[in-house]
Amino acid sequence: MNDRFLRALARQPVDRTPIWIMRQAGRYLPEYRATRERAGDFLTLCKTPELACEVTLQPLARFPLDAAIVFSDILTIPDAMGLGLSLEEGVGPRFARPVRSRAAIRALAVPDPETDLRYVTDTVRLVKSELNNRVPLIGFAGSPWTLATYMVEGQSSRDFAIIKKLAYAEPGDLHVLLNTLSNAITLYLRAQIAAGADAIMIFDTWGGALSSAAYRSFSLDYMAKIVHDLKGTGIPIIVFTKGGGQWLESIAALGCAAVGLDWSTDIAKARSRVGDTVALQGNLDPAVMLTTPEIVAQHAREVLDAFGPGPGHIFNLGHGITPQVPPENVAALVETVHEYSRRYHQHAS
Amino acid sequence: MNDRFLRALARQPVDRTPIWIMRQAGRYLPEYRATRERAGDFLTLCKTPELACEVTLQPLARFPLDAAIVFSDILTIPDAMGLGLSLEEGVGPRFARPVRSRAAIRALAVPDPETDLRYVTDTVRLVKSELNNRVPLIGFAGSPWTLATYMVEGQSSRDFAIIKKLAYAEPGDLHVLLNTLSNAITLYLRAQIAAGADAIMIFDTWGGALSSAAYRSFSLDYMAKIVHDLKGTGIPIIVFTKGGGQWLESIAALGCAAVGLDWSTDIAKARSRVGDTVALQGNLDPAVMLTTPEIVAQHAREVLDAFGPGPGHIFNLGHGITPQVPPENVAALVETVHEYSRRYHQHAS
Repeated sequence: MNDRFLRALARQPVDRTPIWIMRQAGRYLPEYRATRERAGDFLTLCKTPELACEVTLQPLARFPLDAAIVFSDILTIPDAMGLGLSLEEGVGPRFARPVRSRAAIRALAVPDPETDLRYVTDTVRLVKSELNNRVPLIGFAGSPWTLATYMVEGQSSRDFAIIKKLAYAEPGDLHVLLNTLSNAITLYLRAQIAAGADAIMIFDTWGGALSSAAYRSFSLDYMAKIVHDLKGTGIPIIVFTKGGGQWLESIAALGCAAVGLDWSTDIAKARSRVGDTVALQGNLDPAVMLTTPEIVAQHAREVLDAFGPGPGHIFNLGHGITPQVPPENVAALVETVHEYSRRYHQHAS
Repeated sequence: MNDRFLRALARQPVDRTPIWIMRQAGRYLPEYRATRERAGDFLTLCKTPELACEVTLQPLARFPLDAAIVFSDILTIPDAMGLGLSLEEGVGPRFARPVRSRAAIRALAVPDPETDLRYVTDTVRLVKSELNNRVPLIGFAGSPWTLATYMVEGQSSRDFAIIKKLAYAEPGDLHVLLNTLSNAITLYLRAQIAAGADAIMIFDTWGGALSSAAYRSFSLDYMAKIVHDLKGTGIPIIVFTKGGGQWLESIAALGCAAVGLDWSTDIAKARSRVGDTVALQGNLDPAVMLTTPEIVAQHAREVLDAFGPGPGHIFNLGHGITPQVPPENVAALVETVHEYSRRYHQHAS
C-alpha cells in the first residue's frame, strides 16, 4: 500500500508530503455528475453502495491522491434517527422533523450502524475491496455539535439562534442530545473501522460558531469522548473544527493523531503552537483552486514552505473543493505537492 | 458629558465599565419598527436625517448606554458610487451593478461626503446637537475589504468565490479597488468627525474569511492606512474584524485605540495577548440575549470577570444585536455591566 498518508499521520518520515482533498469525489468532476445523474439525487447516490463506491474511486483514477474517503454525508446519522432528511441543490440540507423539545431529544434512539446505516458500511467494504490496498481509506462522521446544529435548526444557519438559545437557556437538554449523538457517532465510526476504514476524520463544521467556553463544553469535550472511546481500535483520527484556529492547542490535546486546519490559520504558526504532538492537515484556501494551474502551484508551494521540513504534514484544502474548480487545477495541485515537497523529506527512506 | 466610553478607549480609569451595543438602534425595539414603518424602507430611513436621528436616540431613551452610534449602513459608500443598492428584508443587500471588470474598478469615483453622502453628515450633526453632550457619538464605516466583497459579489456570500478569484488571479485589480475605497472611507470618516463624531469604528465584517496572508494584504494594510491618515484628528478608532481572533496582535499594532472582539475569542486571553497597547471592546455572544434577564446577567458577569480589573474594557456584544431579543434583556445587560463592574474600578476617581 502507498502508506504516505498513514505514515504522515503517525509523524513518521515520508518520501513526499501526502495529499487528499476534502470532497475529492464531487461535482467538479464530470464523471461524478454523470453517476449522480444516473442515481437521480444525492441521497440515493449515498445510499447505493455500488454508486457510492464508484464515485469514491473516480478522483483516484484521475489523480495520484494518497488516500480515498468514503463517499457519504455527515447527516446520515440524523437521517437514520428518523428526522426526514432532504438535500436540495442550492437549498442545502433540510430536516422535515427538527428536534425542538426536551421530549423530542429524549425520544431519539441510537441507530444500529449494521442495520440502519448498512449502506455506509457496505460502501466501506466495497471500496476497501476495490481499492485492493492501493491507498488507505478514510471513514468519517460529523461532530456531535455539528450534527446537533442541523437537527435543532432543521437546516443550515447563519447565526444558530435556535440551538444557541437551547445551549444557554437549557444546557442540560443539549447535553442529553450531544451524549446521544456521541454514542451514535462512536458506534458508527467503530462500524466503519470494522468494515475496513484505515483512518477516521471528524468534521466539526460549526464548532467555530461558538464562544471559547461554549466550544469546550458543547463541542470539544464530546469529540474528546469519541476519540477516547475509539482509542482501542488503534486507528488514527483527524479532528477538524472549521474556524477553530484559536483553539488548536486544545484540539491537539484531545488525543487525536492529526488536527485539520482551515485556510485562515497560518500553518507555520500552527506548527509552532502544537509542536510535534500531532500531525497537521491542510490548508490551502479552496478559492485558490478557481484560478489557474500556475497560481495553484504557487500557493501550494507557499503552504509547503510554511510547514517546512520534516514529517507530520498531510496536504489538503482548508475546506471542501467547490463545484466550479477546473479538474486540471487539481492535477496541478497534486503534482506540485508531490514534486515540490521532496526537498522537505530528503532524509526519508 | 458621560465620558466613560472615551476614557476607556484611552485606557484611563473609569467608575464603571462603559457599554454600548452594536446595532443598538434596531428591530428589537418596537419604537424603531414604528419609525421604520413611517420611513417606508430601510434605505429611506438611513437617508432621512430627522428619522435616522430619531432612531439613533431611541435606545438611549430606554437604557443608560454610554455611547450613541449614528444610524446608517456600511454600504452607503458603494451606493454613492452608483452601484444601485437595495436592501430587502430576509434577502440582504444587493447591488444592481456589481463591479466585475478592470474597467469597472478603474471607473469608480471617490464620493464627496458633503455632497454625495450629505445625509450621513447631516444626521451626525443633528444627533450631535440633540445629544447635547450627554454621551459621545460614534461614527463608522465598513472596511475596504468588506465593502469590496459586497461590490464584487453583488450581495452577501458564503464563500466569496468571485472576489477571492480576483484576489488570487488579479491582485493588482483588487488593490486598485481597495485603494479607491480606502480614499473614500478616509474622506467619509473625516467628514463624520468634522460633523461631530467623537470616536470612529471600522467594521471589517468579512476579514475573517481570508487566509492569514491574504488578510494582511487585502484587509489589514488598508485599515492601517485609514487609521494612519486619520491620526491627525486625534479621534480614537476601534477596529473590529469578525473572525479575526487569530490576528489580534496585528490588529492591535495598526495604531487603533481599541480592538473589537467577536464572541469566539476568550477576552482574558485577548487581554494577555495585546497587553496594555489597546483597549478591548466586546464580547458577549449575541445569542445569549435571546434567553432571560437572569441568564444574560450571568454571562455578562463572566465576560467582566474574564477581562478582570483595571481600565481599557468597553462592554459590547461580539456582533450586532438581533431582532428577536426582548428589550428587557438589554435592560438587564446594561444594569449588570454598570453595577457588577464597579468592583473592578474601585480606585477610579
